[in-house]
Amino acid sequence: MATTHPFDQAIDLRAVDKGVYAGATTPAYANMVGPFGGITNAVMLNAALLHPEALGEPIALTVNFASPIANGAFEVRASPMRTNRSTQHWFINLSQGGEVAATATAVFAQRRETWSAQEASAPLSLPVPDQLPRQPLQGRPAWVRRYDMRFVKGDLPEAWDGREQGDSSSLLWIRDDPARNLSFTSLAAIADSFFPRVYIRRRRPSPIGTISLTTYFHADAALLAEQSDRAVIGVARAINFRNGYFEQQAEVWSDTGQHLASSQQMVYYRD
Amino acid sequence: MATTHPFDQAIDLRAVDKGVYAGATTPAYANMVGPFGGITNAVMLNAALLHPEALGEPIALTVNFASPIANGAFEVRASPMRTNRSTQHWFINLSQGGEVAATATAVFAQRRETWSAQEASAPLSLPVPDQLPRQPLQGRPAWVRRYDMRFVKGDLPEAWDGREQGDSSSLLWIRDDPARNLSFTSLAAIADSFFPRVYIRRRRPSPIGTISLTTYFHADAALLAEQSDRAVIGVARAINFRNGYFEQQAEVWSDTGQHLASSQQMVYYRD
Repeated sequence: MATTHPFDQAIDLRAVDKGVYAGATTPAYANMVGPFGGITNAVMLNAALLHPEALGEPIALTVNFASPIANGAFEVRASPMRTNRSTQHWFINLSQGGEVAATATAVFAQRRETWSAQEASAPLSLPVPDQLPRQPLQGRPAWVRRYDMRFVKGDLPEAWDGREQGDSSSLLWIRDDPARNLSFTSLAAIADSFFPRVYIRRRRPSPIGTISLTTYFHADAALLAEQSDRAVIGVARAINFRNGYFEQQAEVWSDTGQHLASSQQMVYYRD
Repeated sequence: MATTHPFDQAIDLRAVDKGVYAGATTPAYANMVGPFGGITNAVMLNAALLHPEALGEPIALTVNFASPIANGAFEVRASPMRTNRSTQHWFINLSQGGEVAATATAVFAQRRETWSAQEASAPLSLPVPDQLPRQPLQGRPAWVRRYDMRFVKGDLPEAWDGREQGDSSSLLWIRDDPARNLSFTSLAAIADSFFPRVYIRRRRPSPIGTISLTTYFHADAALLAEQSDRAVIGVARAINFRNGYFEQQAEVWSDTGQHLASSQQMVYYRD
């Protein structure tokens, strides 16, 4: 009997009505408190993808984390707000015990082949994953074990020594563990797999929480299929930390230098 | 009698019920078709700002353009989806003739003073606005006249000669015309005032339309007050153009090098 990948278990949704889905957090993707945010990003997207009226492929997804998500059951509602000839606009919300815990909007589109050009530079040549050590897992939350991360730079500090860094950027290879073919949902999760920049910058732990996360999909189904289950390249940087909120930008690149996705987020932090 | 600034006229909303507002496009901010998108960005934000239950200041705003907005009247509904001790999550939608034309989410927060650090570099020393010519207005849509833009680089091409450029980034001074003290709403409009990167890259006109726009606010009310009505610095760049959608990133900086806002967007384009 085939075993379901833990990622597919984590984003599994059971339709209970049209556009209404029941789901639950899984221990495999637990964070320090509640589930890993990337799973919530993927769950919100999955609700729209599973909807019988879904049209085309995801282009943009914004998830707002309205409150910490508790371990356990949740309900997701996805509503197409407007469907045009080639684009579709979604509103999605996740609730627990009747209270909204996350909201999202998504845009889907049927793409056509056009003139194309990557203007941002793909990450410069970096060692292949096999030449880099896998990141240490000890003392890290469960979800980190579900990714094989190999850092070129910008892993979490080995010591929380409070020595502030000038540069909190990261560059790494990342792959689902066990390996899994890349999909829109797994790409959405990877787009939120970058450790909070404030930890790398300040080398001290503090309460943090993403409040708004936007993911743009440049990959279409064909590009995802090309990538298969090989590791992708992640790049993340901080833009600004100011009075309780910091901005993080990130990109996910294929191992052949194709830009697969961008993500931006505003993250709450406490001193 | 004091005259209302055309920007305030353009974003003016009249409450017709709790969280329900009537507004209308104005010729002063007309684009080629319908209103300038930055005005819609500001109108969506304004609906939440005007709501009697609004708490704190804007942190993040995502507007999805579900269909072209027609010149004329519209209705905006802003609903607080969840209000916490220091954060508040909004869903906003704009409709015309009973059809959804734009949706948005916003996060507001009460900020506290914390350790802060700008990690992205402020634009390098550039000539003061007086040393640069104002951008030409001839042949450009009405809204462009409502901004005094002085380009260091990356204005629209003088000739649509189809000579593809490798770099479509822009750097400019921008200020409301007439001058107006910077506010969250005017900053939201400026965050969408950058010409479509595909025009600068390809130097040929083609149908385009923003489909999803996210704005992050790093400025709080005190920083806006410091900026007063002086010109701000805008930086915009393209990340990737692929099969009908391109990504643009932009930042708005104060004239003293403070990061005021970031914006990202996915824009539809046709060959």
